[in-house]
Amino acid sequence: MKIHSLHLLILISLVSLVSESYSQSRPRDLGIPFGVLPSGKLNAITDVEGLKVGHLTKIEGESIRTGVTAILPHGGNIFQEKVPAAIYVGNGFGKLAGVTQVQELGLVESPIILTNTLSVAAGIEGTVRYVLSQDGNESVQSVNAVVGETNDGFLNDIRGMHIRPEEVIQAIHSAESGAIEEGNVGAGTGTVCFGWKGGIGTSSRVLPHSLGGYTVGVLVQSNFGGNLQIAGIPVGEKLEKYPFRSAIEKADGSCMIVVATDAPLESRNLERLAKRAMMGLAKTGGIASNGSGDYVIAFSTAEKIRSKYNAESGSLENLQTIRNDDMSALFMAVIEATEEAIINSLFAAESMTGKEGRTVDALPKEKILEWIKK
Amino acid sequence: MKIHSLHLLILISLVSLVSESYSQSRPRDLGIPFGVLPSGKLNAITDVEGLKVGHLTKIEGESIRTGVTAILPHGGNIFQEKVPAAIYVGNGFGKLAGVTQVQELGLVESPIILTNTLSVAAGIEGTVRYVLSQDGNESVQSVNAVVGETNDGFLNDIRGMHIRPEEVIQAIHSAESGAIEEGNVGAGTGTVCFGWKGGIGTSSRVLPHSLGGYTVGVLVQSNFGGNLQIAGIPVGEKLEKYPFRSAIEKADGSCMIVVATDAPLESRNLERLAKRAMMGLAKTGGIASNGSGDYVIAFSTAEKIRSKYNAESGSLENLQTIRNDDMSALFMAVIEATEEAIINSLFAAESMTGKEGRTVDALPKEKILEWIKK
Amino acid sequence: MKIHSLHLLILISLVSLVSESYSQSRPRDLGIPFGVLPSGKLNAITDVEGLKVGHLTKIEGESIRTGVTAILPHGGNIFQEKVPAAIYVGNGFGKLAGVTQVQELGLVESPIILTNTLSVAAGIEGTVRYVLSQDGNESVQSVNAVVGETNDGFLNDIRGMHIRPEEVIQAIHSAESGAIEEGNVGAGTGTVCFGWKGGIGTSSRVLPHSLGGYTVGVLVQSNFGGNLQIAGIPVGEKLEKYPFRSAIEKADGSCMIVVATDAPLESRNLERLAKRAMMGLAKTGGIASNGSGDYVIAFSTAEKIRSKYNAESGSLENLQTIRNDDMSALFMAVIEATEEAIINSLFAAESMTGKEGRTVDALPKEKILEWIKK
Amino acid sequence: MKIHSLHLLILISLVSLVSESYSQSRPRDLGIPFGVLPSGKLNAITDVEGLKVGHLTKIEGESIRTGVTAILPHGGNIFQEKVPAAIYVGNGFGKLAGVTQVQELGLVESPIILTNTLSVAAGIEGTVRYVLSQDGNESVQSVNAVVGETNDGFLNDIRGMHIRPEEVIQAIHSAESGAIEEGNVGAGTGTVCFGWKGGIGTSSRVLPHSLGGYTVGVLVQSNFGGNLQIAGIPVGEKLEKYPFRSAIEKADGSCMIVVATDAPLESRNLERLAKRAMMGLAKTGGIASNGSGDYVIAFSTAEKIRSKYNAESGSLENLQTIRNDDMSALFMAVIEATEEAIINSLFAAESMTGKEGRTVDALPKEKILEWIKK
Repeated sequence: MKIHSLHLLILISLVSLVSESYSQSRPRDLGIPFGVLPSGKLNAITDVEGLKVGHLTKIEGESIRTGVTAILPHGGNIFQEKVPAAIYVGNGFGKLAGVTQVQELGLVESPIILTNTLSVAAGIEGTVRYVLSQDGNESVQSVNAVVGETNDGFLNDIRGMHIRPEEVIQAIHSAESGAIEEGNVGAGTGTVCFGWKGGIGTSSRVLPHSLGGYTVGVLVQSNFGGNLQIAGIPVGEKLEKYPFRSAIEKADGSCMIVVATDAPLESRNLERLAKRAMMGLAKTGGIASNGSGDYVIAFSTAEKIRSKYNAESGSLENLQTIRNDDMSALFMAVIEATEEAIINSLFAAESMTGKEGRTVDALPKEKILEWIKK
Repeated sequence: MKIHSLHLLILISLVSLVSESYSQSRPRDLGIPFGVLPSGKLNAITDVEGLKVGHLTKIEGESIRTGVTAILPHGGNIFQEKVPAAIYVGNGFGKLAGVTQVQELGLVESPIILTNTLSVAAGIEGTVRYVLSQDGNESVQSVNAVVGETNDGFLNDIRGMHIRPEEVIQAIHSAESGAIEEGNVGAGTGTVCFGWKGGIGTSSRVLPHSLGGYTVGVLVQSNFGGNLQIAGIPVGEKLEKYPFRSAIEKADGSCMIVVATDAPLESRNLERLAKRAMMGLAKTGGIASNGSGDYVIAFSTAEKIRSKYNAESGSLENLQTIRNDDMSALFMAVIEATEEAIINSLFAAESMTGKEGRTVDALPKEKILEWIKK
Repeated sequence: MKIHSLHLLILISLVSLVSESYSQSRPRDLGIPFGVLPSGKLNAITDVEGLKVGHLTKIEGESIRTGVTAILPHGGNIFQEKVPAAIYVGNGFGKLAGVTQVQELGLVESPIILTNTLSVAAGIEGTVRYVLSQDGNESVQSVNAVVGETNDGFLNDIRGMHIRPEEVIQAIHSAESGAIEEGNVGAGTGTVCFGWKGGIGTSSRVLPHSLGGYTVGVLVQSNFGGNLQIAGIPVGEKLEKYPFRSAIEKADGSCMIVVATDAPLESRNLERLAKRAMMGLAKTGGIASNGSGDYVIAFSTAEKIRSKYNAESGSLENLQTIRNDDMSALFMAVIEATEEAIINSLFAAESMTGKEGRTVDALPKEKILEWIKK
Repeated sequence: MKIHSLHLLILISLVSLVSESYSQSRPRDLGIPFGVLPSGKLNAITDVEGLKVGHLTKIEGESIRTGVTAILPHGGNIFQEKVPAAIYVGNGFGKLAGVTQVQELGLVESPIILTNTLSVAAGIEGTVRYVLSQDGNESVQSVNAVVGETNDGFLNDIRGMHIRPEEVIQAIHSAESGAIEEGNVGAGTGTVCFGWKGGIGTSSRVLPHSLGGYTVGVLVQSNFGGNLQIAGIPVGEKLEKYPFRSAIEKADGSCMIVVATDAPLESRNLERLAKRAMMGLAKTGGIASNGSGDYVIAFSTAEKIRSKYNAESGSLENLQTIRNDDMSALFMAVIEATEEAIINSLFAAESMTGKEGRTVDALPKEKILEWIKK
């Protein structure tokens, strides 16, 4: 236990280190453009009111470089107030837990957890234990944990399965509203993206009042490959770092994308929204390679559409949802926010050395900024 | 640790008890007809050559009534010799792990585990640890565990999460060829079906030589509701036990169905085969109620189609598969075997008392046999 | 043109011939049981209020044995008042038009047409011309026609493509509420089922008031194979008519199933409802063989849930739908009604001689009734 | 009939007019970059050996601006030598015929037809009549026509349903290998893309020998909206032409994408390939708006994998396919080729005046080229 506390100390100092640089370096503030819709106040998934995010970053010794990120759709008891949700599978080479129940019932009933590939079991067990222990859930016997992952095994001793259920619960309890750390934190601690250090990134869009005034927020765990493009600049080509320059260069990896909105959407239109997030990923140069587990989890936090699942008053429920015809602006919002969230993750992530002494460099931001200024 | 060994002792004696009664009471031997195709030698999923099944039954104190069933497609290193596979979701109110990767890549790469709803995490962790520890898997960093479940919380203290990863590994190691225990064993220890004690059931069919001579085997974990029908007799109605006789009688529960065949099928036709298993379930009177997690996992053990995934010799692989046009007899086989496997589970299961002193009775077999003889 | 009127004369007299026998021979009236829920007044899809059905039967010369059946979800302008809908693909060896738009938007916007395999184009063109010509649709430029089919080419000169768009429009205009002709009419004119003469069949169920009091209606175009089972009697085996008795006996064919309900359901739960219809088909002994195009089209006629798509008043719409938790009784209803609708089609269909002098016999009803009485 | 021939005369002259300008103005030749993989010799879908394309362009009077494009996977009898295929639905607001059979059986068995939304019936009827009439198809009674569409109703009198089945057959018969007309031809005659004149576009990629040396070809019918981006330049923003600048500006429309490859792929990996084409569309700024029918039809022309469906020699077929692990380079190829094909369609399309005197301008290419040169 003492040893464990020590690790947390190391961790916290590291996070604040990241935090400082992060406030200075978000691409948007550096003049990089991302579409035409305005972002929310924080340019983060937490611009969606009530939503909370918690990171557990685990950096220990020379080879543990991993973590957990928990996303809570709202601050109440999620099992008792389930939210409409959908999951879209961009490429299914991944272990995301909870998919079929979300697809069948159109609901998420627990915090959403992101972690590494071999810690999905810990993610499920932590989530289940958390839900079972909540006030009001004393008779619950079935919990559909939604746990996503990407593989951080290049920098992290992934086979060690270092994430434990208690740490997942810790991440859930630490979740807060407000600004979110990006880069080498939480589930993004050890990830690699386009050959550079990846990590957690986030962004948001707000629709004009005439289109409903809704907010769309995105959070990504970036860990994939392709031919990086930023604001239209072919960064991958210019830096000579892209797949298939020779037969041995691959583009594998994965991306977890979480999409939240306060727009009242039921699962069918949430799935359509989720599908568009992959179009934002495409704009960064991602190719959803064979080995990529690319998943989008989308949910609505709108209270009216949520509370229904809670009522005891008969078999009918009243929904107020957005028409099919009015979905397109939300589609554009999620594409823009996903592209920006991915680039944000690359700008926030610092170089990292991990397992077997391997180092993954941070994106050479200065060069890119120069090209963009031209 | 000592206590644990003791439990295993109890367990083993219990299993042999079941075993005796089971050999006497399989419905087919009692004259109940199930279709027109002949069964295999054992009338079990293990009629598919090379396949192994292991049960871990956990009956402890007054309220632990649960277990694990492991199905190994073949006796080798499954991760290194992946088998073509598909998963069909009959009704997705369930937590089956591993779905999307099987759907994307068309392969199963580990033992298939069945257990209770809140022990899926233990199932995944056990499977992952087992695969990581196998000879030849030293560099493996990604394992897609396939873990199915049904909810045994009526008889079992499911919230206690009593299955641990080591027990999952134990079930895998105990897997064998040959006859399979049915009824209150393994993942079927605490399940309930049509209001009677359910459990594990298995059956098989062999196609005539002119249709390829292939074997299709089915294993079920029966835990669902509906209006039971056996050999066409409306048992549910006759026993006045069926859903919606009043507004409070529900039909929830779930069914896991594992389908194995030595026919060389790739994932697309395996998915079609899996889909037909739900038609066998329908013939028993199941209705795939809202709360039912009904899943079918199908795979081919044909060596020719399997070994390809193992080769290092270039990007092409040679498959020899069955034409679409020749699938229909296999469809009929899986429908018949699924119906019989479910009825077998009901005939093998003995009455059980568990959590909170609740008792679930065994099916009144004598009555049914009388009706059928008429 | 004159010749054409002549054919219609022949046709009409034939229909009334069928009609007489039909009123005497519905299986339920002959004592054959079908589950536990009560049927509606007509035991027909038209028990769902407002729904209309029209048949166009085309029997000409020695080899034209085909037709069209049109189902109108309501009597208004369907394009302007679209109904929530879903399509489930039991086995996709078929040409059903309109699938992807129904799946994407969750709506049906035109009459639903059933016909033969090579007349889908005529079905679409007729539907489109009908919708374009309706009052209020003057600016419509996009119509998603839903046209299902089965292959009546054993008795019908299907390659002649004898159905023309005008006849489709005629079927739509002839649609009425009230009792429906079954057997050799409309799209069922030339179909074959379990080796006997198939055709159109229909049935319904009404839930008790305590479960909402909703009506579920089913209409089938039966044209498939398998091992026929009626009220649990293995008819196929007793009559020695089932697939794979030898390698050359196949089970191909198809089944179109239309499910209507006045329960307020959005597309997700309608898809789940549709999926259960295949379980009703399974209970008749169908196996969804490789060559079978088995599709279920389900829609809700509830006005509250329909009218929304019509409003001009902003981007939000109010839905009142049934909770997931209360779907199971509807599932049971659709299973029972589908099984009965298929058996009804077999009982109503008379022996027919068609193309190349081939004859398909009517089901030997007397024998079956004898077995059932025992 | 005479009048008809006249129209064809007009048409042919028009096509050659387009042809001249087209050869000068392909974006690649003007210095616009599209990724890192080399294109094939023609930079067209016809770089895939054996594939043929035919256009029927119908420009008559003031308001007929439509057509048909036929793609023949190979020059033989496609029904007798079916090709492995898949269809991916990017957004399903469309009427694409033939989807479910392709998804079920993994095969295309006829020429692929593109046309306008209300002419899908003509497309099916033409295809069916063509297949029925081919030598060797005398006993064929079931044809799965694959007919895609986009809505050209802004410039074309689409309600007039001016495409007839004979014209579809004519397009099929006119199909040829070699260079393809782009822009206002065939199914692209009257389409609009990003607010500019869209049309037919095509492109290809060839993998290096070390990655298999395969060719991937793409043909698009561009008719969709979004925020146009070319070679990273935000063209939509610079020209102030993008969706949601005000609440009334929409982004609707559709895109049909046909992907061909000589790589031996079965349907599962073809579906994965098809899915990536939408990522190429995303890179042009498309958003797959609510009203967009975005579909990708992918097939393999590899003879080895094709001929199997033709054999009479038993129920097994031998396939030689590419491993999952080696798919990623093909994914990158299809993304690049789709992006380029769409931009090609915009560069080739000339300004057009049609229905009600409406004019849609060609893309202001000179401005864009200036921006790119900078």
